[in-house]
Amino acid sequence: MAANKPWGGRFSQATDQVVETFTSSIEGDRNIAVDDVEGSIAHARMLAECGIISEEDGEQMVLGLQKIRVELEDGSFPWDARLEDVHMNVERRLAALIGDATAGRLHTARSRNDQVALDVRLFLRRRLGEITELLARLERALLDQARQHVDTLMPGYTHLQRGQPVRLAHHLLAYREMFARDRGRVRDALSRCSASPLGSGALAGTPHPVNRARVAALLGLNGVTPNSMDAVADRDHLLEVMSASAISMVHLSRLAEELVLFSTAEFGFIEIADAFTTGSSMMPQKKNPDVAELVRGKTGRVIGDLVALLVTLKALPMTYNRDLQEDKPPLYDSLATWSACLEVTARMIPAITFKKERLRQALDQGFVTATELADHLVTRGVPFRDAHGVVGRIVAHCVAEQKVLADLSLAELRRFHPQFGDDALEWIEVERAVERRQVPGGPAKARVLEALALAEAELKEPVHE
Amino acid sequence: MAANKPWGGRFSQATDQVVETFTSSIEGDRNIAVDDVEGSIAHARMLAECGIISEEDGEQMVLGLQKIRVELEDGSFPWDARLEDVHMNVERRLAALIGDATAGRLHTARSRNDQVALDVRLFLRRRLGEITELLARLERALLDQARQHVDTLMPGYTHLQRGQPVRLAHHLLAYREMFARDRGRVRDALSRCSASPLGSGALAGTPHPVNRARVAALLGLNGVTPNSMDAVADRDHLLEVMSASAISMVHLSRLAEELVLFSTAEFGFIEIADAFTTGSSMMPQKKNPDVAELVRGKTGRVIGDLVALLVTLKALPMTYNRDLQEDKPPLYDSLATWSACLEVTARMIPAITFKKERLRQALDQGFVTATELADHLVTRGVPFRDAHGVVGRIVAHCVAEQKVLADLSLAELRRFHPQFGDDALEWIEVERAVERRQVPGGPAKARVLEALALAEAELKEPVHE
Amino acid sequence: MAANKPWGGRFSQATDQVVETFTSSIEGDRNIAVDDVEGSIAHARMLAECGIISEEDGEQMVLGLQKIRVELEDGSFPWDARLEDVHMNVERRLAALIGDATAGRLHTARSRNDQVALDVRLFLRRRLGEITELLARLERALLDQARQHVDTLMPGYTHLQRGQPVRLAHHLLAYREMFARDRGRVRDALSRCSASPLGSGALAGTPHPVNRARVAALLGLNGVTPNSMDAVADRDHLLEVMSASAISMVHLSRLAEELVLFSTAEFGFIEIADAFTTGSSMMPQKKNPDVAELVRGKTGRVIGDLVALLVTLKALPMTYNRDLQEDKPPLYDSLATWSACLEVTARMIPAITFKKERLRQALDQGFVTATELADHLVTRGVPFRDAHGVVGRIVAHCVAEQKVLADLSLAELRRFHPQFGDDALEWIEVERAVERRQVPGGPAKARVLEALALAEAELKEPVHE
Amino acid sequence: MAANKPWGGRFSQATDQVVETFTSSIEGDRNIAVDDVEGSIAHARMLAECGIISEEDGEQMVLGLQKIRVELEDGSFPWDARLEDVHMNVERRLAALIGDATAGRLHTARSRNDQVALDVRLFLRRRLGEITELLARLERALLDQARQHVDTLMPGYTHLQRGQPVRLAHHLLAYREMFARDRGRVRDALSRCSASPLGSGALAGTPHPVNRARVAALLGLNGVTPNSMDAVADRDHLLEVMSASAISMVHLSRLAEELVLFSTAEFGFIEIADAFTTGSSMMPQKKNPDVAELVRGKTGRVIGDLVALLVTLKALPMTYNRDLQEDKPPLYDSLATWSACLEVTARMIPAITFKKERLRQALDQGFVTATELADHLVTRGVPFRDAHGVVGRIVAHCVAEQKVLADLSLAELRRFHPQFGDDALEWIEVERAVERRQVPGGPAKARVLEALALAEAELKEPVHE
Repeated sequence: MAANKPWGGRFSQATDQVVETFTSSIEGDRNIAVDDVEGSIAHARMLAECGIISEEDGEQMVLGLQKIRVELEDGSFPWDARLEDVHMNVERRLAALIGDATAGRLHTARSRNDQVALDVRLFLRRRLGEITELLARLERALLDQARQHVDTLMPGYTHLQRGQPVRLAHHLLAYREMFARDRGRVRDALSRCSASPLGSGALAGTPHPVNRARVAALLGLNGVTPNSMDAVADRDHLLEVMSASAISMVHLSRLAEELVLFSTAEFGFIEIADAFTTGSSMMPQKKNPDVAELVRGKTGRVIGDLVALLVTLKALPMTYNRDLQEDKPPLYDSLATWSACLEVTARMIPAITFKKERLRQALDQGFVTATELADHLVTRGVPFRDAHGVVGRIVAHCVAEQKVLADLSLAELRRFHPQFGDDALEWIEVERAVERRQVPGGPAKARVLEALALAEAELKEPVHE
Repeated sequence: MAANKPWGGRFSQATDQVVETFTSSIEGDRNIAVDDVEGSIAHARMLAECGIISEEDGEQMVLGLQKIRVELEDGSFPWDARLEDVHMNVERRLAALIGDATAGRLHTARSRNDQVALDVRLFLRRRLGEITELLARLERALLDQARQHVDTLMPGYTHLQRGQPVRLAHHLLAYREMFARDRGRVRDALSRCSASPLGSGALAGTPHPVNRARVAALLGLNGVTPNSMDAVADRDHLLEVMSASAISMVHLSRLAEELVLFSTAEFGFIEIADAFTTGSSMMPQKKNPDVAELVRGKTGRVIGDLVALLVTLKALPMTYNRDLQEDKPPLYDSLATWSACLEVTARMIPAITFKKERLRQALDQGFVTATELADHLVTRGVPFRDAHGVVGRIVAHCVAEQKVLADLSLAELRRFHPQFGDDALEWIEVERAVERRQVPGGPAKARVLEALALAEAELKEPVHE
Repeated sequence: MAANKPWGGRFSQATDQVVETFTSSIEGDRNIAVDDVEGSIAHARMLAECGIISEEDGEQMVLGLQKIRVELEDGSFPWDARLEDVHMNVERRLAALIGDATAGRLHTARSRNDQVALDVRLFLRRRLGEITELLARLERALLDQARQHVDTLMPGYTHLQRGQPVRLAHHLLAYREMFARDRGRVRDALSRCSASPLGSGALAGTPHPVNRARVAALLGLNGVTPNSMDAVADRDHLLEVMSASAISMVHLSRLAEELVLFSTAEFGFIEIADAFTTGSSMMPQKKNPDVAELVRGKTGRVIGDLVALLVTLKALPMTYNRDLQEDKPPLYDSLATWSACLEVTARMIPAITFKKERLRQALDQGFVTATELADHLVTRGVPFRDAHGVVGRIVAHCVAEQKVLADLSLAELRRFHPQFGDDALEWIEVERAVERRQVPGGPAKARVLEALALAEAELKEPVHE
Repeated sequence: MAANKPWGGRFSQATDQVVETFTSSIEGDRNIAVDDVEGSIAHARMLAECGIISEEDGEQMVLGLQKIRVELEDGSFPWDARLEDVHMNVERRLAALIGDATAGRLHTARSRNDQVALDVRLFLRRRLGEITELLARLERALLDQARQHVDTLMPGYTHLQRGQPVRLAHHLLAYREMFARDRGRVRDALSRCSASPLGSGALAGTPHPVNRARVAALLGLNGVTPNSMDAVADRDHLLEVMSASAISMVHLSRLAEELVLFSTAEFGFIEIADAFTTGSSMMPQKKNPDVAELVRGKTGRVIGDLVALLVTLKALPMTYNRDLQEDKPPLYDSLATWSACLEVTARMIPAITFKKERLRQALDQGFVTATELADHLVTRGVPFRDAHGVVGRIVAHCVAEQKVLADLSLAELRRFHPQFGDDALEWIEVERAVERRQVPGGPAKARVLEALALAEAELKEPVHE
């Protein structure tokens, strides 16, 4: 007999010891213990309200479960690794607190299939709330730096080659946009995962006269899932959240890559405070941007987590299959890694000093205003394609002569094309070049200040509507 | 000199021939040729309206581009593989049609970076519209079968073991839910990708007095992207769509797996029409569910496409890097594969005959109403955990005696527990068991008819609001 | 000052607390603690032998490290989570045991970069030895079942449709081949990872007169790595092992899928012992093949681990980057999951009862000897393509008439083609069909017995040469 | 009737048109057309030799197939997209050339399952031979550059921070090691995939007295596969090759990343010839390292291909399932991408000019000989950990005073530790630092020359033994 099991009745042989360990999910599932208790409290209340269990039983259960919640929160909960999962741990503890008979009624009209489906949705709601806050914190950190660097100019890069001058604030705001979109994706994912699956049973609902909507209301969820079989088989919300997590990590990895680059002796654009760097056990001079490197490296992990779940779900027939137990380790890892990276990055951003002079110096070489010269010709009637060719030849000439654009006279310019106007040399100046870019979304000062104000306003809204 | 290039000016050496082939994106980018032309028409109109080019030039461009659009649609467009991309092909063709000078002005205030960013957004809008329609078509096919099988009973499975009886319609509606969620994800992705990036230039906007909002309006997009650097670096919308694609393929793979299973001699639940099966070159008797197998197999491909793009984007510094050219092959492949799988599955569903008797016979064994017996005891005051144990022992007894539940008498039941009521045997009947499950989202007839009506109503709404 | 750090000298600020946690690798790296100690013992011996440290210092170090190894093995090692990694934990413990001055000399001519590179190679050698043994154990379990089922016939499937009759032993031996190939891949990976990187320093070797070959010899490794920069940057051996792990998990998933299928009521080919199955908390009759489902599900995890590392390594410049710390969590997870799946599957195989009658019955339908009839015609001069068409029509006729091939008379056969010989009906018999397949690698009894003998002989060879 | 099909006999309905397109594999399978013909020639010869077909038929087939091979090679082969695959195209063409009856005998004792299994193995052997040669070509290109830069010094990096001085040749040789390992993996994969599966039939061999070993010998393969079911289900060799491909692309991506970095204005270590760079359509001054960027970007694609196949294979029951058709698109894409990246990189390497002065200048800052100072103290009896701390403080002092190590006097050094010897300042010199690293695998000149000689010798060996 498989004693201690919620399903031991028809079994004549104890579970193999290796199998016990292999099938256990306790380690990871501590993550959803409080959610499990929340769900059970709502379930117990509903069962009593609907007369499926007695009011007294209901009250006892709720009191017992509330006690367990406290134990979970203060760490005193007596976990028993021999019980196969979190549900059984909670239920046995409840039996110890309120007696076997009453505790044995909690699982009325419920299967572990719909129970765990609910737990994960509650867990996601809770964790995604935290992540939304961390995203906002990171955005605020970027805005704080941006506000201080509205007037700091630097080269904008394409292909890691100096392209055109921009404001550092504009550069930082580009990252702000990415994390704001991440928040949007989290919000959408949340809206699709906040229906209650409870009452779907193992797969076919329950014959008991439960009130599914009531459970949802008690838990603050929006309605109930519409099909009992789908409800226990569906893992879309995990996939959707983990996709959002992978996309956000890609953003973090891009930022991290730039922090690593900008910390090199060669770029020298930033200094990260000692508290966010580490050294070498062999080379005494080293000060390494480890945090940024680790964030970049952990991107692989979160992408791997998404792949893990997609693979696990592929080609599973309906409805619940035990493979689905493997949905949670990558989920936990993905969210924990994402959270940690968001938090550490949000803390590190204020600890970065941007070296204004190095950034400005980088504009003096690299012909970053060559495009301006071409655009100048366009304003004087030269087709852009021709203007581009003319300036290309000017640049080639400068490279050969080891000159920069500012070394050229108007006469020299006109040797390449007669249409250069009297103000042509002004177009080469970096500050003017930036200010000329008044287009919405552009780097001119007025545009950047507008963008800052808009972003700040958006972040002042309450996170959860 | 790198002639024929839109950037040849400063170069003194022709591009290596192997490099030409290696860097070319023409093959794949035919997918976005019409979108490129659409974008250019709007850009030309705006340039003229804003006085950046003359009205006459603007008109000529629009007429030329419209001609090119026709050529693309009727297949007469003269592609030149030596030109490195779709943009240059269109521009050179335009030059042939309206002259070099006028055509050379089209690229005013525009870079290939913002141009291709716009093209892909227009492409996504177009293709996602088609995919939304295909999803709806598949849902309708499932609903058509469901409507005919409201009264067909079958076992619902967990762990591929017979669990509880359900209606076939209920089972089919579970899949309908999945594809309806997929449509929701497509809708969200679309909403996040329908802002116009044009005017962001190479990375820092443009000094010309363009009207970005006007371009957006001409193209029917919702507003403009808020940061020029982000606009050319961002590939979130591709990732989001490809995640939705991967999730949807997981759904298709689950359905496909069941079609393969149900087609086996052992299950024998369905017959797929000859037109949707193929045979063996060696074994003359074979009739294989190839279409379902291929759909299942192609799931790997679409997941691989998503991984490809995530990897490519990881750790790219701002803004545009040539790596981003590799965003489109997986995008095209992902959407083409998804579309094809949706279409072929939607066509195959009506070609499936469900074998009602085989489905019904499968309910006679497997103790699919054992849970009912336990629930019966619960209604008579026995705690569920105890009731479950009692019925487990009854099942073990039957297995040993090679009996089914229906073979037992009330007296025999009462030997296992005194609380079995006079109507206990009724709980074993399959039809009653299903009807007892009146819970919202459950398999009782009334619930299934409601779900069908709801789904039909939802699908009658116009796809694009 | 970042005290307690092996690199604190040039730092003026303590490490941020969140950063401490974020950058710590202690949890996972307990996996390589004994390997780290092994490596240090060899390093200490070599340093003393080469006169780089005194003989007495060398002896002290070795004694201290041996003590630490014992502590690690018996669980008494005092881990300090505040020390950032396993190396520092070992070194501080050593200082406590033998004094700061002597312990402080252990890191002479060594960096953490080459130290951890060595540790992982020793870890891999150790773990891959265990995995090789587990693979062999699984192969032996399959051979044991195969030996008992040389005479058990069953349908071989393609497309999950019954194809041709085979021996169950032949089917099981197909899996044996897969796991034997897995062992081969492990062997190749091991051969490529058994050179010692120690002496490569942080990236540029060491000025001290170390004897790298001696360290390798003390550790039983084959030679030293040939380039110091590559040695600290290279993670190929991890990728190679994790690829082998993913491929092997694909094999396990295929076997698991079949165990799930064969356990269904519909197939009914096997019964898995209670000890390797579990039940349902709601449905008292359920007996689920959870172990097989979990093995199948965990395939996703191991594939995800491989992806994680590939992504992490992409585009890292030379040589060591902190991203590389993220190489080990997926490595540990991949190997632990693979091991556990191999072990539990090897234990479960003997606990499976094959139901001979059900397997045999499955041959009576499905026209599994249709190919034989076609081959019969071929032996009588009919081109195979024509023969295939003839038998296809015979099968279509039987399907329409609800007959099986054995129901047909010779006369009936000849109505489809005059070349059917007098012995045509014999070709339809399942037993003869199998025996006719005497081709090497085929399912005839003699071939299967040969294959069994060969496999057994191969597995008797000592695992480590 | 499904006419035109090699399996139409039992079918009464034509294949749906969408299904035809969906299930077709012709486009991709042109890749294996010549391999299919090679395999068929060997099969035909063996059939005739074994008396299974007449000698005359055998001769006709071989002549016809040889003609087809020529047609395939010169592009005149008349592909018919309506025929579902490459096998049917070849067979129909053969029928046109030598008559239906004779051509119809070619498929005797063969199924498409073992036929395509053989084709892919022949394809792999052919393509991996080419890839081995490309790897060697790339290695030679690296060696050529290394030979010219034995005396060019540069900083070796960790964490992208300057670490210790090395020779550029040493840096380049690190990459050589990676590609040499890649060749080793290709060799191992080849050895595991060069057995002939032909004769395995659809899954259970063939009743005809074929000589499998003879086919293998005719094709130059090493023996035959040992189990007919495994032979048609196995895709390990594809996975193994695609893993090797992904690992090699990771190497290429690391090299590409460095080329991008070294091309920046900030590093300025290299100049890539115009023929291997491209420009910007907007910014006339740009010269971008596009080839390196694309190689880096394509890494995602090859990793995605590997994932695609792993996912497709997961949980497929035995033996052949149509999902397996999806094995080839990712295989073709993976190998084509890998080849193209190897070729273009091998061509680009010689087109790179290393700027010696910039590389040397980079050594003057960054304290790259700080480790030397610590090692100097070690040679004078100071424990390494203490020495490291001392030098860390010296570096901190220099940073504060804006000095470099070379600015310090011996007296100043001794203020930090009395054990600095009279030759301490010599240890700071970059050239001496490199030469002091005589350890095997280190950057001293003698070591690098040895490594170069070894690598050259290895590459002179014939590629295929």
